[in-house]
Order: sequence, then structure tokens, then C-alpha cells
Amino acid sequence: EASCPDPADYPLPPPTSIPTKVLDPDKKTPDHHVPRDPRLIRLTGVHPFNVEAPLSDLYNEGFLTSPELFYVRNHGAVPEVKDEDIPDWEFTVEGLVENPLKLTLRELLAEYDQITCPITLVCAGNRRKEQNQVRKTKGFSWGAAGVSTALFTGVVMADVLKRAKPTKRARYVCMEGADKLPNGYYGTSVKLNWVMDPERGMMLAHMMNGEMLRPDHGKPLRVVIPGQIGGRSVKWLKKITITDVPSDNWYHIYDNRVLPTSVSPEESANNPAWWRDERYAIYDLSTNSAIAYPAHEEQLCVVGAPENYRVKGYAYGGGGRRVTRVEVSIDKGKTWRLGKIDYAEDRYREAGEHQLFGATLDMTWRESSFCWCFWNIDVPVAELKDAKDILVRAMDESMNVQPRDMYWSVLGMMNNPWYRITISHENDYLRFEHPTQPALMPGGWMERVKNAGGNLMNGYWGEKIDGEDAEQP
Amino acid sequence: EASCPDPADYPLPPPTSIPTKVLDPDKKTPDHHVPRDPRLIRLTGVHPFNVEAPLSDLYNEGFLTSPELFYVRNHGAVPEVKDEDIPDWEFTVEGLVENPLKLTLRELLAEYDQITCPITLVCAGNRRKEQNQVRKTKGFSWGAAGVSTALFTGVVMADVLKRAKPTKRARYVCMEGADKLPNGYYGTSVKLNWVMDPERGMMLAHMMNGEMLRPDHGKPLRVVIPGQIGGRSVKWLKKITITDVPSDNWYHIYDNRVLPTSVSPEESANNPAWWRDERYAIYDLSTNSAIAYPAHEEQLCVVGAPENYRVKGYAYGGGGRRVTRVEVSIDKGKTWRLGKIDYAEDRYREAGEHQLFGATLDMTWRESSFCWCFWNIDVPVAELKDAKDILVRAMDESMNVQPRDMYWSVLGMMNNPWYRITISHENDYLRFEHPTQPALMPGGWMERVKNAGGNLMNGYWGEKIDGEDAEQP
Repeated sequence: EASCPDPADYPLPPPTSIPTKVLDPDKKTPDHHVPRDPRLIRLTGVHPFNVEAPLSDLYNEGFLTSPELFYVRNHGAVPEVKDEDIPDWEFTVEGLVENPLKLTLRELLAEYDQITCPITLVCAGNRRKEQNQVRKTKGFSWGAAGVSTALFTGVVMADVLKRAKPTKRARYVCMEGADKLPNGYYGTSVKLNWVMDPERGMMLAHMMNGEMLRPDHGKPLRVVIPGQIGGRSVKWLKKITITDVPSDNWYHIYDNRVLPTSVSPEESANNPAWWRDERYAIYDLSTNSAIAYPAHEEQLCVVGAPENYRVKGYAYGGGGRRVTRVEVSIDKGKTWRLGKIDYAEDRYREAGEHQLFGATLDMTWRESSFCWCFWNIDVPVAELKDAKDILVRAMDESMNVQPRDMYWSVLGMMNNPWYRITISHENDYLRFEHPTQPALMPGGWMERVKNAGGNLMNGYWGEKIDGEDAEQP
Repeated sequence: EASCPDPADYPLPPPTSIPTKVLDPDKKTPDHHVPRDPRLIRLTGVHPFNVEAPLSDLYNEGFLTSPELFYVRNHGAVPEVKDEDIPDWEFTVEGLVENPLKLTLRELLAEYDQITCPITLVCAGNRRKEQNQVRKTKGFSWGAAGVSTALFTGVVMADVLKRAKPTKRARYVCMEGADKLPNGYYGTSVKLNWVMDPERGMMLAHMMNGEMLRPDHGKPLRVVIPGQIGGRSVKWLKKITITDVPSDNWYHIYDNRVLPTSVSPEESANNPAWWRDERYAIYDLSTNSAIAYPAHEEQLCVVGAPENYRVKGYAYGGGGRRVTRVEVSIDKGKTWRLGKIDYAEDRYREAGEHQLFGATLDMTWRESSFCWCFWNIDVPVAELKDAKDILVRAMDESMNVQPRDMYWSVLGMMNNPWYRITISHENDYLRFEHPTQPALMPGGWMERVKNAGGNLMNGYWGEKIDGEDAEQP
């Protein structure tokens, strides 16, 4: 029946294989109890564990990412939680509430409605390597794979807070994890009115793609804040405190901010007031996109090539705002052509209300969009042969469009200028280069341009414009 | 007492003088009954009445705009409503509701709570003249004064809809005015979930700055949709229809859209499908800003000048999102300096709950921001002497920043690239030029650059870069 499509019409998790082996590098770290996938690219040496998948592997998995390739952002050691202790995992709801709560995971499962829905998480540092090429930031070098999507199962956060009864002065929801760090437990906050808004879909999750959360993703309980940067989705949740001011946790203050571009690393160190200005805290993701194919260093033989090459990638918006167009240029932004967008998230809406992973999947009423979309466009190979680069930009439903210019900042976060790959012609081949490669991996056109003395911030990707003074574009 | 500041701490309406004279040009039009202010700049000839104030006059009035300088966007003749008929003005709430309503303004005043709050309205065409300089759009030439702010008094729209009881299928709120036009009554729609969300503050207003609405602003009853383009705030409200699909009103389909930049006027005329794609409909405003001072053609004598010149202007965000920074560059975007922001809207929040204009002003609980802010920055005159231009850009709390590049589209709406004024040095004077002048008024650097053969879309405001091929930036 048309009004009730087969659930199989929406994406189900890709094949997964739960890692069982602790990798050699992890054996001497506090994470010696965490089995992991060897394909992940480590961005901060061996420990703490901060990783992204190779971009092609991520894209090839499709709309949903397997937990073993899902990006990880850990500030320190992963809390060790034995399976038999999971039901007794305890967290509290306190602060400006009439009815403070102490809940075990067992109670959370027994006493609250369970929901399942697909949510894309993105690290605020996604694409930071590009910023580091321009000028070193205080952050490590994410490529463009600091983004992943899963079906999360858990409880609507508002349901828990309603039972705790926030008082009239209550404005913020502070959250703290079990990960003990040099500056205390990791913690941050969001606005209470956001948590109470059903369209924002904030939840406490204990499952990911139908299985228990894995250690790196917050086992046994985490917050999931859709549409906002991953840094707000506290893992290993232990404490919720309702307050009238934003979190004063060290990580809330000194992480996940976009300071004004004029603030240098030195200035930010000398004047801590910059960090205390809540206006610079990041919540919503910004509109972003990247090209997955052509992949970095992919080569296309133009002899006997098919008529078209299919350029493909991902895009996402922030705050539940949908990506409404993705545009590609092969003439340096002079003209743009419209890509096709596949919003797999809509297929869950169309599926009606039903059960998935022992919980209710009902997105029929939800009008916000919290997942990435995939886009593609067929470009004639004859035109690619004459092109020097491929640019992509997305726009969201509020008409926020990715800009040409990078907004460089001390922490290098929210990097979202047009994603650009270059094309070079070598004999019968077109060779494609992405802007960077993650972590300390060499490669990418930005490194090449920089080494050649180009000014990456001149509005033309550091290209020499004939006769232009290198320092005065 | 600190917790209850004097209401005088927030802006009250500027001095006003209600126009009593019908201007000569209006006497022969259907608007012969509407007295108006002669300072307003007409953008579409004599009739219909589409006007903005001179930018300096608008800015000088301060945070609140007098009704006589408040911009006007009329699609046709202003409905004539005699004062004695106002209490009997009738509108309906129908469609997907359990309890259809027919309400008079008298009943609306008697049976519903009345609120007052400051709201900035902006025409989607604000700054469109800049787009028309690049390539003629289907829209007329707004300067940068298609934006105004007033204290609106009326009823929370959700209160009315709750009484009508929308059914489960209800998703959209269609609104229709009394202005009969070639393609029917003006009408459009917004999402029902937005109307029901208190943080979005949508209202039915009958007063503006404490007085009855004037004819050009919807007398006696209009919708006010904060944070969205003015085109959604239907004037002379007659009908609300709850539906499961967006409005099919001609003006909802063929106006207030940003089609992809690749769609030419011809293509949009040949393929009506472009207009039927709801993804291209504009709702939220986008982040925008403009410089008010230096004014267009202002001259600054550098001999004996004070040490600093204070650059000033306005900025606004969309969808209730606050402007969190305004940055100014005098070196073509290479470096930016941070402006000071005055958010007068906050002073109403701080004033606590009280009565204003016979209604409740209570913004203590509201966390969204629906008004423009003013910004300023002191720039040393010695540095201005060496500068060629002044650029400004704003960023909102979701880190949406105004882009360098114009997004040209068929209707020329939502124009929000960096606002730029040029500086020329003539003897002992610095002369400033804005990008354009509204309507058909000549002047502005864009016209000058275009006449000199510059490509306004080359990423450098059409400036010749030495050695650059004019057609291949």
C-alpha cells in the first residue's frame, strides 16, 4: 500500500563486523580494552583516539556509517564499562529542578518510550586541515571525513527533563561525561528550550545501528544533539545539571568556539576574555559539502572514456535546516550547475510509524532534517578536459550558502568554504587532487600551492594571477 | 530596582507626524485616499507604492522606525478601510480545523491576550539594485533601506489557531489579504509548527508603534512573521486557511524565491517547474549588513580631521538567529577588525514584564532575536587615507557569514554579499561611494565599474587586476 512503504525502502545499516582485536598501538595506552578497526586514520598520534575513515570508504558505506568507521573524537581515555555493569549505569538530573533524578540505564529502558532515528554527527573540526595549511590553528588536522550517520535508539531527552521539572529560572542543560581529563570531566551545555522542542530531536541514546553503543561512541549511554556540532553530544553520560547560565566546564569554554578571525593564537592566550564570550560558542553546524569522487589522486583516462563522469559527494546543513541545492562549477565559480540531491532521510519519514530495534521510528511529523544528503552530477568528460578544477557549494533552506572565503580562526573550526579539487592533465590522464589529506599525511593542492609561494587566502586559492603582486591581490 | 529597569531604558518610537496630505502623484491612482511622507523614494514609479527611506534618514531615526519612513511593499491598490468600520473588520480561520472561526477585530481585541514587541521587517528584495547592476532581474531596485523596525501590538497567532483546533493532517498556514491583484488576492503560507512555536513569535498585529496600523502597513490587521522575509507578513488580513500543502496562491509560487543562479529569466519563463519547487521558497532572512556612514557621496576633509572616523551601520540575522559579530575590512578582505554591536532588542528583555500600548511586553523568556542591531567601529583617518574601500560583513549565531560573492538569481532576492563602499581621494578630501542608489537614481561604484568595462562578478568587485584577462579572472 502506497501510504505504508516497506521499511526496506529506507537504508538499513551496512554490513558490520564488530572489531574484537585490540590493535597493537592501543595496547600500551589506557584504551588497551578497546578493539578497533585498523582502517581508521589516527589524527592525534596513538592516543587519545581521534580518527576518521578514508573519505572513499566512508562514502562507499552509503547513508549509514558502520560503527567501526564512524568518526571518533575522544579527549582522553575511554571509560571501561563491563557488559554486566551496563544496566546499573547511573546518571543524575539535578540543579534547577523540582524533582532531582537518579536513573539507571535499566530504569531508562523500562520507564521511558524508546525511539529510533537516523542522525548525522559532525565534528566542529571537519575539514580543519585546510585551515592548518593556511595558518596553524590550535586544532589537529581533520580531513573531510569527520562526519558520519547512524540510527540512534534511546529516549527523548525532554521526556526525562519533564519528569525532573525544571524551575522557572532554568535556561541551560549542562551535561557531563565519565571521561576524566586534565581539566575535569568533559562537559558542555545547550539551551533548555532547544531540548524541550520536539523538532530538535535531542535524545539520550544507548544504541547505534541496532546494537549497543561501542566504547568509542559512549558505551553505555550518550547524548545525541542533532544538527549541532558533535562536541555537544556528550558521551558516557553521568550528569545533567539544569542551570540559568551556560556550562562553565573547561571544555565548554576553551573548545568548540569560532573566535573572530582577527584574534591570533597569541592574543587568545593573553586575553582569556575572548573565550568567555558565549557569542563565539558553536552550536548549529554550518552548511557544508565535499566531493568524494573524483577521489584524491584518482586518475581518469580520457582515451575511450565514457561521455560523462559522475562527480559525487555529501552535503549537510545545520540546526535541522535542509540542504536545498548543491552546485558545482568547473570554471572557477563563474558559472554553476545544479547537482541532483538524494535525501535518504526522507525515506524514513515516508515509511510511517513502525518499530525498529525495539523502539518506535516515527518521523512522519518531523519537519526538520538532521542527516547528510548525497549529491551527484554528470559532467561531460570533454568539459572536464578543459577544466582546471571542480568546485562544490551547498545552500540550506534558509539560503545560507557556503562562501568562497575561508573564515580562519584560532581553533580552526567550522571550515566550510567551497570544496575544491584540482585537475591536472598528464598525457592521456586527468589527475585529481583534493585540498588536503588528513592528519600529517602529505598531499593535496593546498600544500603544493603553499610550497610554490601562493597566497591561499587571495580569493583564488593561491593561484598566481598574471602580474599580480604576490602579497597584494 | 535593578531587576525592573525603567521602561525608558529601551527605545520608544521616534517622533512621528502622521501624514495628513495625499501627495499629488497619488491623487490619480487607486491610492488617492492614502496620505504619505514625501521623503520616501518610490521604486516602481507612482503606483503601486513601493518605497524605502533615504538610508541616512532611516538610520538616523534609530532602532525604531516611524511608520511614515517604514519601507512599503504593495503589490496593488491599498484597501480602503474607514475608521468606523475597523471594529467590524472580519477574518476567518478555516481549512483543516475542527472549529472554523469567523472573528471581528473587536472580538480579537476583547477575547485574546494582547502583546507588544519590537520586530524588524525586511523585504526579500533589500539590496536588489546591486543584483540589477550585474544582470537585470525580474525585480525592482531596492537600495539598502528595505528594512525597518517597529513595536507591533496584537495577538499571538498560535492563540487563535489553538482555538480553531488544527486537525492531525494540518501542516501549513495559508494567509490571504484584502488586496485584490491581477492574479487574485495576495497570499502565502508558513509552516504550522512555526506558528505554534512561541520562540518564533508570529502574531496578528493591529498597532505599530502604539498607534493603529496605517493604510500602507495593513490597516486594520496584518500578520507579522518575525525573522522571515516581509513577503510572508500578509497585510489587510482576511483569511487564514490551514492546509496539508503550501499555499498555491500565485504570489506564493511566483514571488519570494531564490531560483538556482544557473536559471536565466528565459529558462524560468519556459519551465514553470522551477517555480513549483518549494525548496527555492524563501522563509528565513539571511545574515546581512550595510554601512550607513560614511553616506553615499559623503566627503571627509583629511586636513584637521579628528583622529578617528566612526563607521556605522546596521546588521540583521534570519530565523531569530542573532548577529554575533560584525567585521570591517579596509584592505579588501585580507584582514578584518571587529565592530561594536548594540543590540537594542536586549533592553526590552531586560525591562521585565510590563504594559506598553495597552498590551503586555514580556520578552524575559524569549531567546530568539528578531530585530536589527546597530554596529560601529572607529577607524583611524590616517588608515582610511591609504584605503581604497571599506567592507563589512556580519555573522550570526549559527556561524552563517555573509559571503564575498553575490548569489545572482532571477528575482534578485536575498542579496547579501559583503557591503562595500569605495574611497576616492580628491585633493584634501576622501569621497565615499555606496554600491548603488535605489530605484533609477544614478550613482554608486557598481555603475561606474560596469561602465568602465569591469566584470562585477570576478571576486574583486570588477576591479582590474594587472595583467588579468578581462573575461578570465
